[in-house]
Amino acid sequence: MRGLADRLREIVGAEHVLVDSDSLTKYGVDALKRGHPADIVVLPANTEEISRIAALCNETRTPLVPRGGGTGYTGGAVPVHGGVVVSLERLNRILEIDELNLLAVVEPNVITGDIQDAVEKVGLFYPPDPASLRQSAIGGNVAECAGGPRAFKYGVTKQYVLGLEAVLANGEVIRTGGKVVKNVVGYDLTQLLVGSEGTLAIITKIILRLVPKPTRQITMRATFPSVRHAVNAVTNLIRARVVPAALELIDGDCLDAVAEALKVRSLAPPGTAALLLLEVDGGDGQVADEADRVEAAVRAAGATEFVRAKDESERQELWRVRRELSPSLRMITPLKFNHDVVVPKGRVPELFELVEKIKQEFRLRIPCFGHVGDGNIHVNIMVTPGDDDEIRRAHEAEGVLFRGTVALEGSISGEHGIGFAKAAYMPMELTAPTIETMKRVKQAFDPNGILNPGKMFP
Amino acid sequence: MRGLADRLREIVGAEHVLVDSDSLTKYGVDALKRGHPADIVVLPANTEEISRIAALCNETRTPLVPRGGGTGYTGGAVPVHGGVVVSLERLNRILEIDELNLLAVVEPNVITGDIQDAVEKVGLFYPPDPASLRQSAIGGNVAECAGGPRAFKYGVTKQYVLGLEAVLANGEVIRTGGKVVKNVVGYDLTQLLVGSEGTLAIITKIILRLVPKPTRQITMRATFPSVRHAVNAVTNLIRARVVPAALELIDGDCLDAVAEALKVRSLAPPGTAALLLLEVDGGDGQVADEADRVEAAVRAAGATEFVRAKDESERQELWRVRRELSPSLRMITPLKFNHDVVVPKGRVPELFELVEKIKQEFRLRIPCFGHVGDGNIHVNIMVTPGDDDEIRRAHEAEGVLFRGTVALEGSISGEHGIGFAKAAYMPMELTAPTIETMKRVKQAFDPNGILNPGKMFP
Repeated sequence: MRGLADRLREIVGAEHVLVDSDSLTKYGVDALKRGHPADIVVLPANTEEISRIAALCNETRTPLVPRGGGTGYTGGAVPVHGGVVVSLERLNRILEIDELNLLAVVEPNVITGDIQDAVEKVGLFYPPDPASLRQSAIGGNVAECAGGPRAFKYGVTKQYVLGLEAVLANGEVIRTGGKVVKNVVGYDLTQLLVGSEGTLAIITKIILRLVPKPTRQITMRATFPSVRHAVNAVTNLIRARVVPAALELIDGDCLDAVAEALKVRSLAPPGTAALLLLEVDGGDGQVADEADRVEAAVRAAGATEFVRAKDESERQELWRVRRELSPSLRMITPLKFNHDVVVPKGRVPELFELVEKIKQEFRLRIPCFGHVGDGNIHVNIMVTPGDDDEIRRAHEAEGVLFRGTVALEGSISGEHGIGFAKAAYMPMELTAPTIETMKRVKQAFDPNGILNPGKMFP
Repeated sequence: MRGLADRLREIVGAEHVLVDSDSLTKYGVDALKRGHPADIVVLPANTEEISRIAALCNETRTPLVPRGGGTGYTGGAVPVHGGVVVSLERLNRILEIDELNLLAVVEPNVITGDIQDAVEKVGLFYPPDPASLRQSAIGGNVAECAGGPRAFKYGVTKQYVLGLEAVLANGEVIRTGGKVVKNVVGYDLTQLLVGSEGTLAIITKIILRLVPKPTRQITMRATFPSVRHAVNAVTNLIRARVVPAALELIDGDCLDAVAEALKVRSLAPPGTAALLLLEVDGGDGQVADEADRVEAAVRAAGATEFVRAKDESERQELWRVRRELSPSLRMITPLKFNHDVVVPKGRVPELFELVEKIKQEFRLRIPCFGHVGDGNIHVNIMVTPGDDDEIRRAHEAEGVLFRGTVALEGSISGEHGIGFAKAAYMPMELTAPTIETMKRVKQAFDPNGILNPGKMFP
């Protein structure tokens, strides 16, 4: 690797090649907290340097792992086979915000939340809102197809990617899609690269579609005696043809964890098994009307308590429980296996019954919350670091959870992707011919298999 | 081919294999009206038969061309190299409409308009509305990624495809995506197949995402002294953050053609160079408000006349001019080269300047209309059948139009696809490495190149 480091220094400059063990360790993990140190970390300045790095790694058959914010939950940015980690942190500019054509052109390492702030200043809106939006980079959001609470109304990242510039494993640069919302010239390589987890190409430029910023939001909270009651509320909403911008479910175990963390006796009436956070947005004319229909639908489903935020501070207060969730769960134990399974909305109660069974059978604490409008539930299997038996049970529980999710016509990942953490489970969901087809696509892009090896495929 | 026909009869039954010259001719053309007769037409009943047909054609290296409604404008369903046309007309059932999970499962040859009617009966909505929606099949819409007037607000076909079942060239069946709106397990083969024009696989089942049906529409018409005035109106709308469901531009030449066909002196005030049809939709609360903002924005741009439909019959009357367009143009001449170029909205005036130059230079009649909100303009080059000189000039004009469109950061096709009609122009828009990557993807799906050969690639 020493000779390689020198050749990389020639490309990016000595100060942008890191080989100290702190860096190699730091760039060897993501939010999953399971990793493998890199052999070399390189920080290129532009597409041309990335192209030369790729060509060099391809020529020397060196694993090349692209990295953005490093906030992934499935090890997507982790160099499991060592090799070169190419961190895109220096490609961090918003190149263009085009108000007339409702689009933005950005480099991959702009923080997603910064893009939202910038476009909202001019009355535009970039809806995808993963929980990590203040840390995660847009390039990673695109590579993993990030979602978030607003996906129920606005869709996920892929719905906002119009075009890409990307570097292939051999160093060639491709340009897909463009600045037009309609484009049917050739295959949709843009959408193929979205969610490809850095295994097909390194994304170096992104053209994002924007929408007008909603002028008003109304946030509401409702509590229920059971998850089924909460899902019935969602069903009522759909029957009433109301589409909230956010529809977040938080279960009783999560509420206990947050109460514990905030040192309050309780966040909800006794016997609350499910809490819904609902938000409607849009033009002033429609929002109040939608809020009324939400309230009616939710009360009809047997809400034990219903609160509507009167102003922004009350709104922030309602959202607080959601924001405190992850830190609170981390207080219970620093280690959790956070799974983002997704089922057709109507089958969410069956998913919770499955989780209940798993809790008993494997003696595990499994608080759940998530985007119930999409049937996308975050199942957090809590484990005590060092407790090997509990960790073994947690891994067994994973398998049962994933198999059960697929049996409910669901998917084992709605937001986090496969990385290396879920690679072994792909065959549970996809047939052999489907996986083989994906492998042939990988081969078509990266014949030597240097891009992010050890990811996605079993 | 005789032996092959016998083996196909064993698969689908003798009555479902057509070899009479009328059928071979009929299945050898689409709406482009330039074709090549099929050698054999086969009408399978289900996925399993299609799988066996594909395996047979793959084994015998016979071109296999999937066909839906045959309404395409680029020859996508035409067997340019002969071989077997597999018409999906017997796969024409709506299998499921899931009101709770907002989705429908359909076979490829359901007429798109029939899907819309069926889901609207239960208060749901399938937005994509290509002009051919009463003739074209959903499978063809998916294979070409059809658009339509509503795309400005609702997006194109790809935004509504959640999952697919498809038969590969070797007869294997793959299943992509599923019934969940969020799914990041493996590559997004669903979106790769959308718009792949039958060159990668034969789509046999489609899972469509639905949305709540808007409860109300308001339709408006405005006329302008120039296309630039009309585009300024669109710009005002975007600045005012109003997103009409439809935003259709019709130029002066089109208006003359319709007036001629309807035998009326004129459809608009003298000196009208552009007419906009605008429609807002949504909840009752918001629609009236949006219509007012549309009127303000449009009048501020210098509309010479503004009409708002008071009821459904007035609404239909306003849309009449749009519906009469194609028949009227056909009255001028039975032959037109209908191109669906697309540019960033702000550059539409430059596109019309380009068309004006082309009219003069090549002495051609070129009425234009289209989805101006998307910058997607249908440029209709009218030619007289048999006038070889005019046809030659028309083809030269095509090249100039496409080159100019790309120079305006546009795309040579926003809706119709490439087929064989535009294959030669792909390199104008896409770089060599991008086209080579697409060819490798094709190779990965169809190593023997039997699926719809002679399409898309130069």
